[in-house]
Amino acid sequence: MPRTGIGVDVHAFAPADSGRELWLAGLRWPGERALAGHSDADVAAHAAADALFSAAGIGDLGQHFGTSEPRWEGAAGVALLAEAARRVRAAGFEIGNVAVQVIGNRPKIGPRRDEAVAALSAAAGAPVTLSATTTDGLGLAGRGEGVAAVATALVVPVARDEAGPATGAAR
Amino acid sequence: MPRTGIGVDVHAFAPADSGRELWLAGLRWPGERALAGHSDADVAAHAAADALFSAAGIGDLGQHFGTSEPRWEGAAGVALLAEAARRVRAAGFEIGNVAVQVIGNRPKIGPRRDEAVAALSAAAGAPVTLSATTTDGLGLAGRGEGVAAVATALVVPVARDEAGPATGAAR
Amino acid sequence: MPRTGIGVDVHAFAPADSGRELWLAGLRWPGERALAGHSDADVAAHAAADALFSAAGIGDLGQHFGTSEPRWEGAAGVALLAEAARRVRAAGFEIGNVAVQVIGNRPKIGPRRDEAVAALSAAAGAPVTLSATTTDGLGLAGRGEGVAAVATALVVPVARDEAGPATGAAR
Repeated sequence: MPRTGIGVDVHAFAPADSGRELWLAGLRWPGERALAGHSDADVAAHAAADALFSAAGIGDLGQHFGTSEPRWEGAAGVALLAEAARRVRAAGFEIGNVAVQVIGNRPKIGPRRDEAVAALSAAAGAPVTLSATTTDGLGLAGRGEGVAAVATALVVPVARDEAGPATGAAR
Repeated sequence: MPRTGIGVDVHAFAPADSGRELWLAGLRWPGERALAGHSDADVAAHAAADALFSAAGIGDLGQHFGTSEPRWEGAAGVALLAEAARRVRAAGFEIGNVAVQVIGNRPKIGPRRDEAVAALSAAAGAPVTLSATTTDGLGLAGRGEGVAAVATALVVPVARDEAGPATGAAR
Repeated sequence: MPRTGIGVDVHAFAPADSGRELWLAGLRWPGERALAGHSDADVAAHAAADALFSAAGIGDLGQHFGTSEPRWEGAAGVALLAEAARRVRAAGFEIGNVAVQVIGNRPKIGPRRDEAVAALSAAAGAPVTLSATTTDGLGLAGRGEGVAAVATALVVPVARDEAGPATGAAR
C-alpha cells in the first residue's frame, strides 16, 4: 500500500536590485526576477522535498535542513531534494513519484519543462512531473508578490528482511 | 504502482454586469455570480484536468489547451476534462480517481453535489469526488474575489504488449 | 487500487481577548494565539477529515458536521477526525494514510510533532503524518491573519462478500 504526502512552499520575489538570480525547478532562469530567501528559494524543489518527507512521515524541510544543520544553509533546492530522497529511502521507503505544480505569473514553465523535469527527476531518483498555472491576478501569486508551489508524492514502504541490516537493501 | 498528481486553479468573479453565467463543476448555476475568464472558468473541472496531466506527466492545461490550440478556446470545462482524460489514457495510463475540493464562499456545493459528481465523473470516465470548503473570510476566496479549486488524481501505467500497437489497448 | 483525496482548511486568528485557546493538530497550545471558529478551529484535524471524505467520495466536513447535525457543534477537531474515519470505513474503505501540512507562522510544530502525530493517528486509526511550512510573509498565513492546513489521504475500497452484510466486515 503506497502512502501519499503533500508539500506547499512560497517565496517572495526579491527586490530588483538584489543581485540574486532566479532558481526554480532546478534551473537558473536568466533575465527573470529572482525569488528571495536564505536558500536558493526554489519553491518547486522545496515543495517536492516536503511532499516526500510528508509521505514518509519523517518531518519536514525545516526540521531536516533548518538552522540546526548549518551545512545545508544556502544549498541548492535540488541538493535538498536529492538529500530528502536519500533520507526517505534510508527510512525504509521506495519513491513512486512526485508531482509539482508551480503557481505564479512568471516565469513561463512550458518552454523549459523537459529540462526542469530532467533536473528534478535526477535529484529525486524517481519520476518528478512539473506543471504550472496562474491565478487570474488574485492572491499572492496573482499580484506578483511571489511564487508558490504545491506537490504530492507517493512512497511505498519497503519489505524488510527482519534478520537485519546485512540483507536490508533499503538501508 | 499508481502515480499521484495535483492541480490548482483560480478564477476571479466577473463584474455583476458581465452577462456571463456561473459554470462550476460541470454545472450551470443560475442566479449565482459568474466567474471571469477566456474559458468558462470552471475551476473544478480545470483543477481536475490539471491533476490528471500532472499525474501522467504530460504537461498542463496551458500547454494542451492554450493559445496554440485555438479549437479549445472557450470550451466547456468538462469538455477539457474529457479531452484531458483521453490524452492521459492515450499516453498509457489508466485513471484511478480524481478528487476535487472547491474553495470559496459561493455557490454552496452540497445541494448539487451528486449532480456535479455525475457530470465530472462522466467527463473523466472515472470516479471524480467533489467537496467544498470556505476560508473563514481570509484570502482571495474568503474576501469573495474569486473561487479556487484544488485536485489530486491517481493514475496507473498500463502494462503494454511490447509487440506493438496492434495489441496495445491503451493507445 | 487506492483512491486519493484532498482537503484544505483555513481559520482566522481570534482577537487577543477572545478567551479562546489554540487547538491545533489535536493538541492544546498554551500561550499561543487562538484560532477563531464555531468549532475548535483545529485546521489540521479538519483538513485531515476532509481529505478522508474526499478520497471516499462521501461529501465533506460541512455536510457531515454542519448545522444539520447539532450534536457535532463545538466538537474537538480530533473527535470529528475520528468520526470521519469511522464513516469512511462504514462506507466500505480501508484507510491507508493521511498527510497534513500546517501553513502558518505560529505555532512552531517541530518540537511537538511526535505528540501531534500520535493524537491525529489515534483519532484516524491510521498513520497521519504532520509537517509545517511558512510562506515568506505572503498571503493570509504569511501576514499572520490565520493558519491554513492542506491534507491528502489514500483509502482503498474493501472487497465485499456480495452475499450481504452478514459477512461484510467493513460495514
